[in-house]
Amino acid sequence: MRAVDLIHKKKNGEPLSQAEIAFLVEGYCRGDIPDYQMSAWAMAVYFRGMTAEETAALTLAMAESGDEIDLSPIRGIKTDKHSTGGVGDKTTLIIGPLVAACGVPVAKMSGRGLGHTGGTIDKLEAIRGFQTELTRERFFAQVNEIGLAVIGQSGNITPADKKLYALRDVTATVESIPLIASSVMSKKIAAGADAIVLDVKVGSGAFMKTVDEAEALAGAMVDIGTQVGRQTSAIISDMDQPLGYAIGNALEVQEAIDTLRGQGPQDLTALCIALSAQMVVLSGQASDMESAESMLRERLESGAALDKFRAFVAAQGGDPAIADQPDLLPQAPVLIEVAALQEGWVQRIDAEQLGIAAMQLGAGRATKDAAIDHAVGLVLRRKVGDKVAAGETIAILHARSEGEANRLIVEHVQNAYTISTEEPGLSPLLLSVVTGKGVQRYS
Amino acid sequence: MRAVDLIHKKKNGEPLSQAEIAFLVEGYCRGDIPDYQMSAWAMAVYFRGMTAEETAALTLAMAESGDEIDLSPIRGIKTDKHSTGGVGDKTTLIIGPLVAACGVPVAKMSGRGLGHTGGTIDKLEAIRGFQTELTRERFFAQVNEIGLAVIGQSGNITPADKKLYALRDVTATVESIPLIASSVMSKKIAAGADAIVLDVKVGSGAFMKTVDEAEALAGAMVDIGTQVGRQTSAIISDMDQPLGYAIGNALEVQEAIDTLRGQGPQDLTALCIALSAQMVVLSGQASDMESAESMLRERLESGAALDKFRAFVAAQGGDPAIADQPDLLPQAPVLIEVAALQEGWVQRIDAEQLGIAAMQLGAGRATKDAAIDHAVGLVLRRKVGDKVAAGETIAILHARSEGEANRLIVEHVQNAYTISTEEPGLSPLLLSVVTGKGVQRYS
Repeated sequence: MRAVDLIHKKKNGEPLSQAEIAFLVEGYCRGDIPDYQMSAWAMAVYFRGMTAEETAALTLAMAESGDEIDLSPIRGIKTDKHSTGGVGDKTTLIIGPLVAACGVPVAKMSGRGLGHTGGTIDKLEAIRGFQTELTRERFFAQVNEIGLAVIGQSGNITPADKKLYALRDVTATVESIPLIASSVMSKKIAAGADAIVLDVKVGSGAFMKTVDEAEALAGAMVDIGTQVGRQTSAIISDMDQPLGYAIGNALEVQEAIDTLRGQGPQDLTALCIALSAQMVVLSGQASDMESAESMLRERLESGAALDKFRAFVAAQGGDPAIADQPDLLPQAPVLIEVAALQEGWVQRIDAEQLGIAAMQLGAGRATKDAAIDHAVGLVLRRKVGDKVAAGETIAILHARSEGEANRLIVEHVQNAYTISTEEPGLSPLLLSVVTGKGVQRYS
Repeated sequence: MRAVDLIHKKKNGEPLSQAEIAFLVEGYCRGDIPDYQMSAWAMAVYFRGMTAEETAALTLAMAESGDEIDLSPIRGIKTDKHSTGGVGDKTTLIIGPLVAACGVPVAKMSGRGLGHTGGTIDKLEAIRGFQTELTRERFFAQVNEIGLAVIGQSGNITPADKKLYALRDVTATVESIPLIASSVMSKKIAAGADAIVLDVKVGSGAFMKTVDEAEALAGAMVDIGTQVGRQTSAIISDMDQPLGYAIGNALEVQEAIDTLRGQGPQDLTALCIALSAQMVVLSGQASDMESAESMLRERLESGAALDKFRAFVAAQGGDPAIADQPDLLPQAPVLIEVAALQEGWVQRIDAEQLGIAAMQLGAGRATKDAAIDHAVGLVLRRKVGDKVAAGETIAILHARSEGEANRLIVEHVQNAYTISTEEPGLSPLLLSVVTGKGVQRYS
């Protein structure tokens, strides 16, 4: 078998066999197949697509390229959640305790953030004493005991995906649905979950610009799950602005706590319930979405979800009192108001620019080894659809110090807001659910 | 400017500017842009094509990537010819003296062969004493004096094309009309000719499988010529079998001499006259094809073309007597007859397989530094459309020695012939002419 022949075949629109795809992925991972052949193949895939069988074969080959976690010591149907990510995405902090409180075992490995999007591990480390490195045994035992553990990614998970993703990033071959789908699913499959719920964002700032594209991506991922025997479903949501109000590690932990208490932002709560309901059904704790949702609301209202969060924090070495005393979380010493530049309605908020502003404050890493400041970030006061007066506070910076640099960040945040004289039409947050049975749009 | 953004642009079907293409080619040539980005770009070009302006910009950037020959010391309109190559292609040996005898100055740089196709320089070196390395001054002076000189390619011509072609070869991005067209034309432009005549083959063994494809390639090359101010035209010819009968260096020189004497194979003579007529017209030695063709036929019949060949051989250090005494050329000691395996009509001759057989006899190089045997090769006795009896001689091997290895070569040649019980329909050799005015099919 020669890589050039396989590129040729793909270029001509013929599907590759499972053995051919494994040859490419394994050869590339070993270094036998050079970058320049994989990038040509990836570009051919961009134009020709891949069949469901090819996509599943690629996913499995990448999942098998490194360590594969065996979660069988954990009882029950282990369900994982994946978000396509985004600024201010603290859903894992909420969904973990929430579904665990419904009896869904959550054994989650999460990443750190790079650039303008934060990682769940960074957020958890805003809690003093919280340990994100557990032995495999303790990790399993904790899930069996309290239903939930979250640790940092360790070991060598999907090295083929890492290598291929880095290559796609510099060869304009990122935006290919089968390549995106297999990248996401390979990691989830290697992480060992029995069932997978996907949080797929759509919007101008997201990978997927239209609902149709997002549904196609979700469909591809659900198909992979079906092919490899891991039940998978996806929620498509509109993501043209940050989720909730808080951006920054401790600030997001605080917002997650508020949400677990049933007092969170409406958009964040709605999305967390929708995703959690899928997990509850897939893991067999409820027979349908309606009963799952009412179970979840009950866990929020009764305090059971917040109790689970306290147990989770305590189990991993943190102080559970943070759930009730916000000032136990790191606090930024300086608060700076960001004023609206003009009167009108907030038309658009550029989440990426807010993420960059938070990173400049110190909440994120500009480079892989940079330290982050857990206390800093920003809290929005106005979101899309809100009416503002000129000079009114639209956001508050939580900064480490006074100083000239912050003036530029204030301007950065001001520029991230588009304020117009016309009232914007509000689009719904939840757009559709994609399962093995097909696509169902929220009415 | 970033390469990844240019790949992205091309992938989305937007044309790149001249500056953007120059950035890619220069950066790639310098090593600043890695192979994996160029291969992704080439694959995007395969799917999206290039505009005439882009193709011309690519051609010029590659032509300018290395040495560019200035032929201005030579008087007259210098006209070059390019063949897409092929087994047994000795057209340069014939066309050079033939058009020089019509007053067209020919200052040609040719390559050596690799694999199963021979190079013009290898063929000329079959003539004892023939020098293919001349100083630039002597090269120019010889063309001014006798109208013709052929030397080996020296210096650093189109290094960007060499590098890109090698990459395309291993990334399944060879078959792109704008990439093929720019590769060919960049070399011709760097070689300095004022006008260019292209010999484009079509057929199952050629790059271009259909007349439409061949015309599209020719049209792209003619467009480049127009864009960069070098008049260009092309002859499309059917090439499903070797041209003429001889394959092998000295054997092909002999067949060229026969043709210059007016006693060559019909197909070879017809193609050489068609290509030569284009050159005669482009260089202003005749006003139309008809008068050009009658001038050319006169030069064959009068012996003027063969005289020019004698003068050319003598000027470059060879013995002009070879034009009249075939045994002055290297002779293979062993002749081996290849018999038809069955009765019928020759339906097809696989030129590539015959080229490989000739290489196995020693006529070609399997690797870049291998020595070649000028005497060996093969001469066909039957071509497509000929009727043969079982056991009748269809070809003769000219071999260095007796031996077991030759038995396998005989079988190889036998297998290259498809003999069937049906008389094949014969397709015409000359298919169309492509000039700046458009495509004209031979009736």
